[in-house]
Formats: sequence, C-alpha cells, structure tokens
Amino acid sequence: MMPVIATIGSHSSLQILKGAKEEGFKTAVITKKPMVKIYDSFKVADEILIVDNYSDMLGEKFNDKFSNFIFIPHGSFVEYIGYKNMLKSNLKFFGNRKSLEWESDRRKMFKWLDDSKIKVPKIFDGPDEIDRPCIIKFYGAKGGKGYFFVSDEKEFYEKMKNIKEADDYIIQEYVVGTRFYPHYFYSKLDHELEFFGIDIRYESNADSIGRIPPKFSDKINPTYVVVGNTPVVIRESLLPRVFEMGENLVNASKKFFGGLWGPFCIETILTEDMEFYAIEVSARIVAGTNLYIDGSQYTKIRYDEPMSTGRRIAREIKKGIETGRLDELLQ
Amino acid sequence: MMPVIATIGSHSSLQILKGAKEEGFKTAVITKKPMVKIYDSFKVADEILIVDNYSDMLGEKFNDKFSNFIFIPHGSFVEYIGYKNMLKSNLKFFGNRKSLEWESDRRKMFKWLDDSKIKVPKIFDGPDEIDRPCIIKFYGAKGGKGYFFVSDEKEFYEKMKNIKEADDYIIQEYVVGTRFYPHYFYSKLDHELEFFGIDIRYESNADSIGRIPPKFSDKINPTYVVVGNTPVVIRESLLPRVFEMGENLVNASKKFFGGLWGPFCIETILTEDMEFYAIEVSARIVAGTNLYIDGSQYTKIRYDEPMSTGRRIAREIKKGIETGRLDELLQ
Amino acid sequence: MMPVIATIGSHSSLQILKGAKEEGFKTAVITKKPMVKIYDSFKVADEILIVDNYSDMLGEKFNDKFSNFIFIPHGSFVEYIGYKNMLKSNLKFFGNRKSLEWESDRRKMFKWLDDSKIKVPKIFDGPDEIDRPCIIKFYGAKGGKGYFFVSDEKEFYEKMKNIKEADDYIIQEYVVGTRFYPHYFYSKLDHELEFFGIDIRYESNADSIGRIPPKFSDKINPTYVVVGNTPVVIRESLLPRVFEMGENLVNASKKFFGGLWGPFCIETILTEDMEFYAIEVSARIVAGTNLYIDGSQYTKIRYDEPMSTGRRIAREIKKGIETGRLDELLQ
Repeated sequence: MMPVIATIGSHSSLQILKGAKEEGFKTAVITKKPMVKIYDSFKVADEILIVDNYSDMLGEKFNDKFSNFIFIPHGSFVEYIGYKNMLKSNLKFFGNRKSLEWESDRRKMFKWLDDSKIKVPKIFDGPDEIDRPCIIKFYGAKGGKGYFFVSDEKEFYEKMKNIKEADDYIIQEYVVGTRFYPHYFYSKLDHELEFFGIDIRYESNADSIGRIPPKFSDKINPTYVVVGNTPVVIRESLLPRVFEMGENLVNASKKFFGGLWGPFCIETILTEDMEFYAIEVSARIVAGTNLYIDGSQYTKIRYDEPMSTGRRIAREIKKGIETGRLDELLQ
Repeated sequence: MMPVIATIGSHSSLQILKGAKEEGFKTAVITKKPMVKIYDSFKVADEILIVDNYSDMLGEKFNDKFSNFIFIPHGSFVEYIGYKNMLKSNLKFFGNRKSLEWESDRRKMFKWLDDSKIKVPKIFDGPDEIDRPCIIKFYGAKGGKGYFFVSDEKEFYEKMKNIKEADDYIIQEYVVGTRFYPHYFYSKLDHELEFFGIDIRYESNADSIGRIPPKFSDKINPTYVVVGNTPVVIRESLLPRVFEMGENLVNASKKFFGGLWGPFCIETILTEDMEFYAIEVSARIVAGTNLYIDGSQYTKIRYDEPMSTGRRIAREIKKGIETGRLDELLQ
Repeated sequence: MMPVIATIGSHSSLQILKGAKEEGFKTAVITKKPMVKIYDSFKVADEILIVDNYSDMLGEKFNDKFSNFIFIPHGSFVEYIGYKNMLKSNLKFFGNRKSLEWESDRRKMFKWLDDSKIKVPKIFDGPDEIDRPCIIKFYGAKGGKGYFFVSDEKEFYEKMKNIKEADDYIIQEYVVGTRFYPHYFYSKLDHELEFFGIDIRYESNADSIGRIPPKFSDKINPTYVVVGNTPVVIRESLLPRVFEMGENLVNASKKFFGGLWGPFCIETILTEDMEFYAIEVSARIVAGTNLYIDGSQYTKIRYDEPMSTGRRIAREIKKGIETGRLDELLQ
C-alpha cells in the first residue's frame, strides 16, 4: 500500500502536499481549525485532520491512522512538536531526525558549521566583551521572534531590562552584507547534492526601516520576525562556493550524526569581501522554497519539468519505495 | 456573438488582454498614440483604438463599436475616466461599478474597512493633533503622487508651504512594518473567494533611500510614487488572516453596495506584532498582479494550468456566458 | 554541420547553454576547475573544456576545436578576455564585437547615450567641483568593485587616501531613485526590438545598510559589488519610454559602429519625477536575465513558450543558419 504523505498545516505544507500529489501520493494534513479553509481552497490535502493541540499527534489515538503516514518535518513542525519529542516518537519521518537536534541546539550547530569550514559571526561570551554592533538571539526563539539589535554594551543593558527570559541567549556580531538563503537537496539514494534556489527572508520590521527618514528610524529598534520571503539569484561565479558549503555540511553530518539528507538550507550573509557567514542551518525544508512552487531559476536549468522542493521530497520517497530502500530515508 | 474583452491601454492591460485571449476571446485596447508600439510588440490586442482623450470613450462616436465590448476596469481606467463618469456610463463593465466609488472616496473606504474588522492607521483631524510621524495623502492623488512624510506638526507646516491644493488631504499615522498587498478574486458565480498572490509596491524614491548613508538620506523627503512591483510570499500561518480579511470585505460590500466581485486587493502593512493595517483598498485588478502572468506561487498550488488574474476574469465571464448569468457580472 | 554554442563558464553561462540546448544545439563551456561541478550538476554543457587561464582560449591550441564554435559574450567574458583581445581574435562571436568597445570605454558610452537622448547623471571634472553626493567609479572596475560614495569634496580626499590606482576614475552625481535594469533583444534578422524583462541588481553592502539603525549605518561606507539580482515589473505606462530608450540606442549604434544586435541592457535609475537616468549600458547579455530561465513576465505575454534571453540568442542563430544569413550575426 502506498504511504500517505503528511505534515502539519503551516510553514511549507501547501508546497509539500502539492508536490506529493504531483508524484501520485495521497496526502493528509494535521492542523487546527483556522487553517481548514486554506486547505479547502488549495485542494492539496486528501484528508484534513483537525487537532486542538499538535501534541495530540503523539498520542495513541492516531496510532492506526498514522501507521501508513510518512511525515515531512518543517520549521513549524519542529517548533510545535519539539525535536526531543520527535526523536522518541514512533511516527515515520522523512530525513534523519537527529539533524533536527543539530539545527536546534546552537552549540551543536556551531560545531557542525565549524567542522564544515563555514564562517560564523563572532560570538561574545558576555556583554562586557561587546566591542561592535551585535544581535541578541534567544535559544528556542522561533522565526526570529524576540531577537534584537544592540550597538554596544550600554544599549545591551538598557534593552535587557524589558526581557524576562534573559537566561538563555547568545550575543552575536552583526555582520553587514547581503543575505542569501540557499536551498539544497541531498539525495541519499543517488549520493548527489542538488541546488534548489535561493531566497531572502522578509522580516518585520527590519525590512521596513530603510524607507523612512533616519531621524525617525533612529528611534526604532529593528526586529527580525520572519514574515515572508522574496526571490533572488546569485552571481554565477559564487556557485562553486555555494555548492561547497552544502557538500561540507553533508560530509560533516555523516561524522557527527549519521548523515543529513533531503532538503536543507544555510542562512548566510555575504560581505562586500565575498565571504559567506552562516547565521543558521535549517536541516529540513525552509519556507523560502514556497517561492518556487513550479521550480526555481536553478531547478529549471536541471529539470525539464516543474520541480519544487516539496515535489523532490516526494520523488525521493517514491524512488525509495521502488528500489526497496524506503527505510533508509526514514530515520 | 462572443463579446470582445476591452480595456484602456495602461496599468495591467497587457495581462488582461493576454488572459482574455487565453480564454478564447477577441480583445481590444483603447489607448493613446505612444502606447501603440507596445501592443504591436506584445500582440495581445486584436484591435487597437487610438483616442486623443480617454473621455472620448464616453461619447456617442463609439456607441456601435462598444455595444459588444465588456470593459475591464483597472487603476488607470478609474483615474482617466473617473468613477463618477463610469457610474453613469452606458458601457458594460466587469464587476460592480459601485465598488469603484467605495475605493475612491476615502470616507466610504474607511467605513468599509471598519465594518470588515480590518485595522487602519490612525487618522488625525488636524495638524495640531500630530503626535507621531505621519504621511500626508491627497484625495484623488493617483499612484501615491504627492504623498509626503512628516515627523511632527512643525514639519507639516514647513512642507505644506509648497503645496497648492492643500484643501483636501488626510493626515495618517505612519505605521512601521513590512508591506503585503494580497490579491484576491471573488467569484460571484461560485460564491468563492480565491487567493491570487501578493506583491510589494516599488516606490520612488522611498525604496531607494535605504541604500545611501543616513547623513545624506536625512536630507531627502521620501516620496511614494508607485513605479513597479516586486514579488513576495507570506508566512503560511498568516494565510487564515489573509483569507479572513478578504471574506470580511466581500461580506461588508454586500451590506453597503450590493457586493464586490472579481479581483481586488487590500494594501496592508504588517507590524512586528503580526497585526495587519490596511492603508488602501483596490476594488478591481491591481498592477501587482502583472508579476504573475503565468500564475503566482498560490495559483500554481490550486490550478494545474497558468492562471493570471487577467485570465481568471476572462474565465468568469466565459462561465457567465455559458450559464446565462453574464448580466449578473456586469453592474 | 551545426555549430556548437559556447561560452566562458560564469555570469550567465547556465542560461546561455540551457537556451542553446532548448533550440537543439550542442554546447560547450570553457571554464576553470572549480566550476566543473556546477556543469556536472546542471547538465547543460555537452563539453567542458578546462583552462588554467582564460587567455589560453586565444592561443593556437584550440584552433581546430573552436572552428565550429560560436561564442556568446557576457560580462565576465569581456572582463576575462578583454574587449581589445576580442576585437582582434579569430573566434566567432554572436553580436557586434565593436559594441563591447562602446560599452567598456566610458567616453564612448556617454557619447552613445547622449546621442540616444538618454539622460545620464552629471559628471564632475574634478573633486573641487563636487557640490552634491557623488559616486566614484573606476575605469575597468568590474561588477561595481571599488566604487564608493562621497558626500562632498572633503570626503572625497579622505577616501582617496586608501585608493591606489587613483588615476582613472569618474566622479558621478549620485542620482536618487528606484533602479530598473531593462533587458532588450534586437533581432538583426527581423529588424525588431523585443523587451525581455527587468531586474534590480543586489549589491553588497549597499543593499544591506537600510536594515540597520542609522547610528550604525552612518559609519559604514556603502559598496556596490554586484552579488545577485531580484525581479521587478514596471508601471505599464512607462513602457513606451522603456522601448524608446532601447530603440534610440540601437539607432545610434548604427551611426557609430555598425549596429547593436542581440541582447543588451540599459542600467537606469528612475527619479521621483519619472525621469530615467542611465548609469551604464551593457551591449550583451546581463546576469539579471538569469532570473527568467523560463521567461519573464514580459516574454510570457509575447511568447506562448518559455523564452529566456539565452534561448532567444540560440533561436536567432538558428534562424540565421536557416536563412543563410548567419555571417551577418557574427561580427
């Protein structure tokens, strides 16, 4: 019996389900009431399962139902369920669940990037070390919520007054440069890295302060909640480095936790000296791929058919089934 | 006899005519001399009617010619002809012409938004009430022309010195946030709201001042002339609110003026607190849909064929003809 | 024997080769080692020729191999080989090689623009004439590298201290406005100008300083290295002027150097008064066309098939072969 491709109704679920249907799968979405009308409109979910809390998914109630489901994790999935719950769950996930731990735990993430020879902005051990503009990021903060910018130590203490959960944050150098968030897909079956396109995150209100006179914007604290994505292509001569970063990350993942496969993204800043700095790794599909529902500028070069990241996932699963190697993909 | 789909040669006419041809209609464009080469190049107008003044369209000269035409209104159409002239014209328009009055008259527009439970930036009754940065908008100003930014009351009076038609303007709070201009299509025949994509307006010179050092940009008054559009996708978890705003607007329109159908747009700003503020309503096709000539990221999920807003209009008209309900669509 | 379409592996090579294959040509890329994996992944080059130095291409070694090659010049091609070497080379190039001289030599470029009635920002003869913010551009600087911004004469001298090759630069007024880089294709066989779309260059770090508080960005010197491109559509009523600029440029090229054909671009800034100012001309394909691998918003109106600039070049060559006029295209 063909498995059902399923995910939680948020983030990149429309793309994931659309891609699954394009490859001939039945689909299901687990979601809360307000999203139902979205799936009614877009007609990509063969089944809509409504839950009050996403944690209901982990209970026994759905045991039978989910026995034939393959779940595709995404950013909201990890946020709502938690990577720790996902690690011990009996659900079948596409990809290596351990990679979600390595993207979520910042210490592990920096170790992974370091081993992959990808630069990261300087991390300061404490506020007294701040010698340049920094961004303060809270552990577990999702979608950039709560992040803030400080020019110096004094501003750090001023702004921390309003923060409650001040125990668990990092102080990271603010690297100035253009943003590129390249999307990759590593095929475990073919041992091949594919490049799937690039987006720029659209953040409120950081992406709106440049439109107003400085005398006004100087009074605004930039915030970094991710609210959308915009498309971009990169200078072609930078592609070897883009590929290399992806390859290095895949290689290091084999050493650390048994490998990374399926879609992933390295959130980078490109300085004027043409150096990439990684500010984050996403070890699963990113919402920026929602820009490319019928393929990006890059997949259109390689593929002679529409190929979203969502569809590529479904195709890999299909090949896994056809070659009897599905189990290798679900860990 | 199949009607001819026609519009004025500007704004989104290429898309409208292309979409009409895709659905099998003959097309015509009414335009001035300089635009003729555009239609020669793009080959979407079966007939090019050149006028000296757009108001010629309302005269008797074209009575016979236009008897079989269905006109698709757009922003420049309303600007050139005027909604008052359109309301009393004998021409056949797609959509409810009364909606053009409700988008053009700001008092009506705010009433409509208020009833739709969509927030709007605060309006100040007079300059002495200005207690935060504001944008001054002139009634009837098209495409953002003449709008200006003021930090406070003093700056208001300084800048008003240079303004001639100072009698009819609003003083509106400048809400800081990312911009999203969602495109909708409401099918009167199917009683269904569809989501067609989102754009960000590209404005001169507001969208260029962020690239220059603040010491220079501080001397520049931002201006807001709409000169283009760029694409964006929105965080998926915000889609229920996007749909809800569109539904509320359609529902309120039934109460106020007999309904809104066909394409429309709510120009919004999304604050860092995830609240949408509407700065405008467009009760007809918007130029941002020109980004999506073969469909947007969102129509590609729902439709298995290229579907622009222009084509969707033509398809609705075709269905109206086939079901004998065309008259309902032309009011 | 059908010629092979070839280019240097950078800039827009993926698009050029993909387009050539779509039109049925065999393809070849001349490149350095690090790019090989890119062509392995994208599968658009039937032959990959690895060189240590691009100038090797001009040697006798490749005489036989290249006898059946048609080379498509692009920005990196001109940068790596040099237009002077291209002018005296025996290689066959698509387009009029003389146009590359007229884009590279700024004096010629300004003469060409002036004759085409396209405005350019004011050029100051020396630093003592600087009376407004300016951008300093070095001759031969590629991709914007080394360009810098000065507010006044004093800042000019301060910043020039760090510059070595200070002998050959221009001081150009910084025109404030939105950027539009329209792509054209002029068919020499059909005597017709086509409009192929528009991009905005994404520059490091000029396109990142607007996201940070002015008190910080005021300490940053904006730089203008082109690192990518983003898509945009233009207000439809501006299209006649966009076409006119392209037509004028083609007409003036006939007077000055025997004509411009194939793809080209005019890099413009649009002021709030709706005036276009040209900052550059590219007399060959630009990297911004990489956004539109299966066609832009504009080619999708005219063509009922995917049509990139790369494919359009190949189609022109094919028509040249079929009509026995290929030699006219290769000069």
